[in-house]
Amino acid sequence: MIFKPFRIGSRPKGPGGLYTRRQILAGSLGGLTVVGSSSFVRARDPIPDSWTLPGESFSNYGQPRSDRSSPIRWISQHPAMPGEGVSWTPLHELEGTVTSTGLHFERHHNGVPKVDPAIWELVIYKVMDSGQVNGGIALNLDDLHRLPMLSRVLFLECGGNSNTLWLPNPVQTAAGYLHGLVSGGEWTGVRLNELLSVAGRVKDETWLIATGLDSAGVSVSLPLSRLPEDTLVALYHNGEPLHSEHGFPARLIIPGWEGITQVKWLHQLLLSPKPQLGRYDTVVYSDLNSDGRFERFSHVMGVKSVVTSPSPGMHLNIKGVYEISGLAWSGNGSIRKVEISVDGVHWEEAVLQTPVLDRALTRFRLLWRWQGQRAVIQSKATDDQGNVQPTRSALLEARGQNHFYHYNAINSWQVNEDGDLSHVYRS
Amino acid sequence: MIFKPFRIGSRPKGPGGLYTRRQILAGSLGGLTVVGSSSFVRARDPIPDSWTLPGESFSNYGQPRSDRSSPIRWISQHPAMPGEGVSWTPLHELEGTVTSTGLHFERHHNGVPKVDPAIWELVIYKVMDSGQVNGGIALNLDDLHRLPMLSRVLFLECGGNSNTLWLPNPVQTAAGYLHGLVSGGEWTGVRLNELLSVAGRVKDETWLIATGLDSAGVSVSLPLSRLPEDTLVALYHNGEPLHSEHGFPARLIIPGWEGITQVKWLHQLLLSPKPQLGRYDTVVYSDLNSDGRFERFSHVMGVKSVVTSPSPGMHLNIKGVYEISGLAWSGNGSIRKVEISVDGVHWEEAVLQTPVLDRALTRFRLLWRWQGQRAVIQSKATDDQGNVQPTRSALLEARGQNHFYHYNAINSWQVNEDGDLSHVYRS
Repeated sequence: MIFKPFRIGSRPKGPGGLYTRRQILAGSLGGLTVVGSSSFVRARDPIPDSWTLPGESFSNYGQPRSDRSSPIRWISQHPAMPGEGVSWTPLHELEGTVTSTGLHFERHHNGVPKVDPAIWELVIYKVMDSGQVNGGIALNLDDLHRLPMLSRVLFLECGGNSNTLWLPNPVQTAAGYLHGLVSGGEWTGVRLNELLSVAGRVKDETWLIATGLDSAGVSVSLPLSRLPEDTLVALYHNGEPLHSEHGFPARLIIPGWEGITQVKWLHQLLLSPKPQLGRYDTVVYSDLNSDGRFERFSHVMGVKSVVTSPSPGMHLNIKGVYEISGLAWSGNGSIRKVEISVDGVHWEEAVLQTPVLDRALTRFRLLWRWQGQRAVIQSKATDDQGNVQPTRSALLEARGQNHFYHYNAINSWQVNEDGDLSHVYRS
Repeated sequence: MIFKPFRIGSRPKGPGGLYTRRQILAGSLGGLTVVGSSSFVRARDPIPDSWTLPGESFSNYGQPRSDRSSPIRWISQHPAMPGEGVSWTPLHELEGTVTSTGLHFERHHNGVPKVDPAIWELVIYKVMDSGQVNGGIALNLDDLHRLPMLSRVLFLECGGNSNTLWLPNPVQTAAGYLHGLVSGGEWTGVRLNELLSVAGRVKDETWLIATGLDSAGVSVSLPLSRLPEDTLVALYHNGEPLHSEHGFPARLIIPGWEGITQVKWLHQLLLSPKPQLGRYDTVVYSDLNSDGRFERFSHVMGVKSVVTSPSPGMHLNIKGVYEISGLAWSGNGSIRKVEISVDGVHWEEAVLQTPVLDRALTRFRLLWRWQGQRAVIQSKATDDQGNVQPTRSALLEARGQNHFYHYNAINSWQVNEDGDLSHVYRS
């Protein structure tokens, strides 16, 4: 009764069975067709059960379906400290560019504090050249809500995303559990600049030290002059007041910078002539270079892409046309292009989902006719500043063997002759 | 210890205390300043409780905070049929342009059916000129997932949104409970055009009859030639597979068209030379004109805007600067401009949040210095096709007294001298 494969009228003009971006944009694929008329069904439709009985009623807050096929975040946590760890966005089960708030990745260093909005304050102090802390100002949540707001659709990525790929052998798991410490969405809040102007002149201060309310004591030193102009003290994600796990009541959002700088449960902003050089500036979120020096304050996330479908754990069960789809992003700006290869030699430009936004997830797509051959699917992103996603060997050569953060090399998914996909390394 | 009011250096140049868009875009507001140095706090911060105890652990799917201040959908349902009704997006408590999936409005006619994805099929039939139904094709969920996808950020609005405003007296409730049958978000799915091309040539068929799996028998007739080119059979909302209440496993998404056409739990597509003229084409979702004829197939939603803050139920507790913020949308295209008035005479252009997208919610903002006077806040949207949101009297004159759907007139929120806001009518 049911046809399985579909066919496209045109032949792929790109290498290895890839259709070209031009073929897709011009709509010159010749349409999809069914394989054989025997796949047609008769017009005798059984009555579905759901037509005969009323359905479920309404809810105040919607939930995903409860069956086991609904995507969930995968949790990696410290055995003795359940609030130390991460939860991963299942990128391989999702589509588009917005991440639903309930599936946005999390990285907590000692759990999610409950903050009482009635007594919460954001306090802004100044540290003098003498080291003495001057009096500051305090704003409560009502004060912040009175200020002008700005919304930005952005990616947010943990500096440690993809860090198992620094290991000598490729870990075999799904794309979302390798690379899912990145999510996309709309943040709304008050511009940091506006807030600091409320605190008075800040011309001489070079560093902003931001501290959260969690018991891990997350506190980071940020060079004020390098902060993007649209840095926010965010109060909303995807339209809603922040969930506790995303930093309620307020979170620093610095477009394109690594996750640790986007301080959750924001409590203190210190304007200081010097960085604090605390744990989160030095011990973690900094990388050991080959020369023995630490790479500190490496805040901006590099240009990167990952193919989410097809990806490891999936299976191509028939020969035919597949859409290669994935996400690209760059902390430096917007994505200019993403190229796809299935043979490691030839590259074909993918179609980018519009609008392509500054420092936001960008969905790319390209059709591919798979004819049962072994193939390695790779994607290579280029941003509008001309940064190109490096090969794995180029990244290792540039960064040495002791890096743990900011892995952004080209990823490789191998398709075997039987249609199984696995994670491989290619230089 | 805490300062309350903030001040802006520049004076408003627009009428009634409105700042102009030019002042805001040029950043010539002179910065926010605190009122008086006595509001500074000392650098003696008490230790917050949350710094001393580990926080909550991780979850597979995130939830909003459980306290009563978290926004929820307000439910209006039939007393005897709990699945017949609506749940409202609390627009007055939200920000930005994306609606979190859990707060997206719902309109069900007899509840939410549970659909088993393992046996679900989308069936496409052709109805001949003779009225006979020809054999068709069936696609299961795996088939749909194999096809090329497209993502679109769109508004979705119920044809009956705002319908209490057809009543002779203004209902006193929050903006979201007057106008919250509209939400925004990213939908991803297969182009309807691609699917129909799978079914073969459709050149002679004029109507698409789409039927869902709910027990209310929702089925609508759609003129195929007028459907937007990017009409989708959507499988994802905000990146996630559809929640049941939003139509899992598949929903028709027709950019800019009224909600009833976006058939949930999509089951059948009939290609037919004639419309079906069923209940949902005739009895409901059509309007009685003054001449006694019914306005049928009024599918495209008109240009519209609503100020979400400040709005009825809110209170301006001090004289000072407020941001007037709201949402605008049009089923005809993108929003070209939104104008704000506080006196019903003068209009000042608001700043639009970028990017301004086709048939998507657009956030507008304008600063206003309120000095304790009575005022009526209104917003007027214009789309890129030149359609202008009508006044209430113009809408009533054009549509007559018996319309129930497609209310899109300019809204009026009155600010009293004591700072209270209420819903009023203005011609």
